[in-house]
Amino acid sequence: MTRILVLPGDGIGPEVMAAALTVFDALGLSVELDHDLVGGAAYDAEGTPLPDRVLAKAHAADAVLFGAVGGPKWDGVAYDLRPEAAIIGLRKHLDLFANLRPARVFDRLADASSLKPELVRGLDLMIVRESTGGVYFGEPRGIERLPDGTERGVNTEVYSTPEIERVARVALDLARRRQGRVTSVDKANVMESGLLWRRTVQAVRDRDFTDVALDHLYADNCAMQIVRAPKQFDVVVTGNLFGDILSDLASMCTGSLGLLPSATLGPVDADGRRPALYEPIHGSAPDIAGRGVANPIAQILSLAMLLRWSLGLEEPATRVERACEAALARVRTPDLAAPDLPTVGTREMADAVVREL
Amino acid sequence: MTRILVLPGDGIGPEVMAAALTVFDALGLSVELDHDLVGGAAYDAEGTPLPDRVLAKAHAADAVLFGAVGGPKWDGVAYDLRPEAAIIGLRKHLDLFANLRPARVFDRLADASSLKPELVRGLDLMIVRESTGGVYFGEPRGIERLPDGTERGVNTEVYSTPEIERVARVALDLARRRQGRVTSVDKANVMESGLLWRRTVQAVRDRDFTDVALDHLYADNCAMQIVRAPKQFDVVVTGNLFGDILSDLASMCTGSLGLLPSATLGPVDADGRRPALYEPIHGSAPDIAGRGVANPIAQILSLAMLLRWSLGLEEPATRVERACEAALARVRTPDLAAPDLPTVGTREMADAVVREL
Ligand SMILES: CC(C)[C@H](C(=O)O)[C@@H](O)C(=O)O
Ligand SMILES: CC(C)[C@H](C(=O)O)[C@@H](O)C(=O)O
Repeated sequence: MTRILVLPGDGIGPEVMAAALTVFDALGLSVELDHDLVGGAAYDAEGTPLPDRVLAKAHAADAVLFGAVGGPKWDGVAYDLRPEAAIIGLRKHLDLFANLRPARVFDRLADASSLKPELVRGLDLMIVRESTGGVYFGEPRGIERLPDGTERGVNTEVYSTPEIERVARVALDLARRRQGRVTSVDKANVMESGLLWRRTVQAVRDRDFTDVALDHLYADNCAMQIVRAPKQFDVVVTGNLFGDILSDLASMCTGSLGLLPSATLGPVDADGRRPALYEPIHGSAPDIAGRGVANPIAQILSLAMLLRWSLGLEEPATRVERACEAALARVRTPDLAAPDLPTVGTREMADAVVREL
Repeated sequence: MTRILVLPGDGIGPEVMAAALTVFDALGLSVELDHDLVGGAAYDAEGTPLPDRVLAKAHAADAVLFGAVGGPKWDGVAYDLRPEAAIIGLRKHLDLFANLRPARVFDRLADASSLKPELVRGLDLMIVRESTGGVYFGEPRGIERLPDGTERGVNTEVYSTPEIERVARVALDLARRRQGRVTSVDKANVMESGLLWRRTVQAVRDRDFTDVALDHLYADNCAMQIVRAPKQFDVVVTGNLFGDILSDLASMCTGSLGLLPSATLGPVDADGRRPALYEPIHGSAPDIAGRGVANPIAQILSLAMLLRWSLGLEEPATRVERACEAALARVRTPDLAAPDLPTVGTREMADAVVREL
């Protein structure tokens, strides 16, 4: 039987996950859900943000549906045990190297962006972020005390050609099924690791994807361009750290942050299985957690992505997506409050989606 | 006699610098200007982007007025000799550790932003970027070939407590003369160097600046917040790499990119002298170079900053700034074209400033 591992996590994670599961239940699928703890919640209960049991379940599951982790409550926790170590550990242990983060503007919501509506209306940009390498994982790392009593903090940005090649392929391949354009982002003008990134992406393109157009931008310039004219982009591919910043930036520009799902994919194995984790782009939002006001749509759409990509359940996935759009035309959570629509809480939003199914 | 080293550099650098010098001449100051080559221009003439002669002059000068460096022409040049090595080398050799990048919105130009005008009108945010440390300078670095034939690119993010402390002081001190609020930005949730950054900035604040409010944001969240509601910030302090991205992003949000100057300051020495370099926020813009259309205002305002901060020439500095504002009310370069104002080239814009002096 198909099995999904459900990891709500911290902050608004449990609330939006509960909402997504209401929708899941309404679909009546014969898919088994297995819930477990992750992040700060797991740390509080078991002293570790990613228990071995959870990792083993993640390996065995057909897909992972993830909420969000982290919050000020765990600020004092030892570095290796902080809630964020859970999502980073899942990416690493499941080899989830391609983090796909769409920045799409929902038509009705073009006005919700802080950018002028004409700059974002119709925007459909896909950021492909490498997610098992770079400075997130490089060694040496840590804080050391020097003989003179001062301290020194070190992290290492490191990328090898195979790491760059595999994520470049994902991006170039995606572009083929979109507008056929990839922008690769680095700081090759100050970092040799960026220079290798640039050359390697170009080589993959020149060897196997000559039908796709590829250009290169520096990360500072790309950040500016995303704000200036986001519609110039089709697919953006970049390393872990730049991808973290640029994907959040791009989703914020859409004005639809609370609506955007993401997928993180591993390599296809010999049996054709592909490990995958689905999570909303937004974080754990500790400031609004527990108040029942968080927008559950990104979590619900993450579930839809999971159904389609990992379980091949195209029809239910489409039904869920349509229901979300329809529900958004009727009611809104406070983050997207509209003068002519009732403002509702997390649960009511989910109920509205179920009603439209 | 007071001496300024003038380094126009590449791309639009020489054009906007020539324009700024027209304004300088009109002031009739008894300040000596010394011109020299830097960046790609120096590489083409002498095989190095930062000749020893230029570095020696920069050390001896009272201040450096810098244009911009870089361009696709030098893409194939050896890494150590690329044009960007000039600005990075100047920062390092003169110990210019505090890069001050204001993101101010010129009233008349609030509509030029890609953000909604009400979000940026009145914005006055100062980004203080550490500029002699971090991944720009950390060792080990480079590209190595592995035994299996693949390559590996490495850079090192490294910060020590004294490096963090001195730039934190600059930011906290600036905030005292502004709204009294500093936001420190890092990725402490994934990088130990960021954790040390966060703790150290907090310690400086708690020891010597208890009158200044300090908070901390992750870099991805800060990028989002700059786009969502930039006016929430007063002073932002961050490391070299995040500062590069966030300052470009903030200036783009103002819609006034072509108008924004910056200053990079070193430590005050025993004689009270402080090395300083002034440059526009915008880069060398190779795509429009040589066409006489670049906006020279950022370069002219960089000159004004230099006059005030390095030479103590308050009155001429203010005259130049007022003249720029007045000129912008009459004519515009193409980047800021307005339906009701004539569009002019670089030289005409400078002439308009001179006329208003
Ligand atoms: C929570 C944090 C560690 C994580 C990251 O930096 O990757 C988050 O910001 C993200 O983008 O998924
Ligand atoms: C030209 C480049 C090396 C430089 C940097 O990355 O510091 C530029 O982007 C800047 O911000 O001054």
